[in-house]
Amino acid sequence: MANALSGHGIRNVTVLGTGVLGAQIAFQTAYRGFAVTSYDVDTAALGAGRRRLVGLATTYREQVPGAAEGSVDETPDRVRLTCDLADAVRDADLVIEAVPEVLEVKRDVYTQLGPLAPERTIFATNSSTLLPSDLKDSTGRPDRFLALHFANRIWRFNTAEVMGTPETDPVVFDRVVEFATAIGMVSVPVRKEKAGYVLNSLLVPFLDAAAELAAFGYAEPHDVDNVWRIATGSPLGPFQVYDIIGLRTPYNVMMGGDDRTRRIAAWLKENYLDRGRLGVESGEGFYRYPAAGDTPDAGGVGAR
Amino acid sequence: MANALSGHGIRNVTVLGTGVLGAQIAFQTAYRGFAVTSYDVDTAALGAGRRRLVGLATTYREQVPGAAEGSVDETPDRVRLTCDLADAVRDADLVIEAVPEVLEVKRDVYTQLGPLAPERTIFATNSSTLLPSDLKDSTGRPDRFLALHFANRIWRFNTAEVMGTPETDPVVFDRVVEFATAIGMVSVPVRKEKAGYVLNSLLVPFLDAAAELAAFGYAEPHDVDNVWRIATGSPLGPFQVYDIIGLRTPYNVMMGGDDRTRRIAAWLKENYLDRGRLGVESGEGFYRYPAAGDTPDAGGVGAR
Repeated sequence: MANALSGHGIRNVTVLGTGVLGAQIAFQTAYRGFAVTSYDVDTAALGAGRRRLVGLATTYREQVPGAAEGSVDETPDRVRLTCDLADAVRDADLVIEAVPEVLEVKRDVYTQLGPLAPERTIFATNSSTLLPSDLKDSTGRPDRFLALHFANRIWRFNTAEVMGTPETDPVVFDRVVEFATAIGMVSVPVRKEKAGYVLNSLLVPFLDAAAELAAFGYAEPHDVDNVWRIATGSPLGPFQVYDIIGLRTPYNVMMGGDDRTRRIAAWLKENYLDRGRLGVESGEGFYRYPAAGDTPDAGGVGAR
Repeated sequence: MANALSGHGIRNVTVLGTGVLGAQIAFQTAYRGFAVTSYDVDTAALGAGRRRLVGLATTYREQVPGAAEGSVDETPDRVRLTCDLADAVRDADLVIEAVPEVLEVKRDVYTQLGPLAPERTIFATNSSTLLPSDLKDSTGRPDRFLALHFANRIWRFNTAEVMGTPETDPVVFDRVVEFATAIGMVSVPVRKEKAGYVLNSLLVPFLDAAAELAAFGYAEPHDVDNVWRIATGSPLGPFQVYDIIGLRTPYNVMMGGDDRTRRIAAWLKENYLDRGRLGVESGEGFYRYPAAGDTPDAGGVGAR
């Protein structure tokens, strides 16, 4: 791994935010041998983050091939925790920002971060719904800023979408692509800004087409799923994917659409949301999930 | 199986056309115990059809669980062959039409068929691209006419989409759904006419979104495929599906679209079609297929 490290010049990685994704990113990066610092706003948040890291050691031991024989149990201790932002980024080669998905929150973080981090430091946002262009000016270093987008359950759904702005230095872009590969991700370079990156650019029209079939009375959800699974060999049909994502987010997206889309949203509300059928998380969506945690096994789509 | 047969009142099935799909439909129906007659225009066509049936016995023996221990070798002999249309349909409960995908050819067949078949006979078209409404008037019995759409490699991609017109008798619709189940298909009732049935209603926007990502420079095909496979657990990404379908058909569909879609078509032509990269069939498309017959394993999407 020494070669990989020297190749992209990234050794010290700081992750901002110790929530679900932030903890996973920190854990995976430390597990792959990088020096990792995790920052959060106070000691209470850091305590919760620490518990997530310890929990991830168990998850990796059970689910990641070879993890039980390796250093997975020591990984949580290898993540340095701090609630002092200056301390967190003092020697960072790369800062991965995974703070709450609110534009003003993220802008505030970058405004503080810019003067504290060394000039060489690359900033990467894990934002799912914002474009890096929405944030670049607050970083003070748009040439060294881009998006690095992970999926939930990073150890299994190991894609890393890398997406810059027109101002991102191509050398920085390539370095982050190499870094993502070095921590075990399948790097996905996205060469122009696109809301939803690659995954949601595919999922949204696919799920929309499925909803149209059911909402306008062409076919039942389970029949639609049957066709997709049998024809493509996929383990999941579109309505199973809806259930994993949860129906609220698609509903909100559809309500912002045109007449046709709002008719589909109304159908979703009347038949599902208003009846408490929100997807896997509520125990019922298009399908029933009697046992808690009885999740179909493709949480990667949950990153929507 | 006696109960299943009596349930839907279909015993004698005639398949019109002994081409790739016609032969598969006849074979599967005979294999599942129904009395099958296959019709084609002359003895040369019937000879080719007979060879297809014999070849399918080998395929089933190799690929269908339990087929080797059963009656699969006798199945070709159980399909009665005739090039006399009156003889073919004299005692048919169900006629499945799988003649060439040309409107006038199909209309001619129905115009001949109508007066020759018993009143009780149900007519079903396997058309992929026409709506049953395009054909219903030529049948002389729109209440007993609908679409029954199979996928290529029926023994593996065993969906049967059933789609009527507003004039189709609901009892007839249900009978055909039951029949499809009785011959081992997963029946997919489509309750209103929809071009492309369920499968292409999902595939077309999905493949279109993928092509947009590549044609407009957002991401490379293999990266797009990586994201889809990892996030959804699917064995195939969208560009692998393109290769299986073959790029000519999507190109022709796109050329009939709007400005944006024609720009994608132009990209497809310049980078793929004009270079002889037509998909699996030509040995190269978005990927290379060095060995003949080295087809990714999901021919069900080839029914597009």
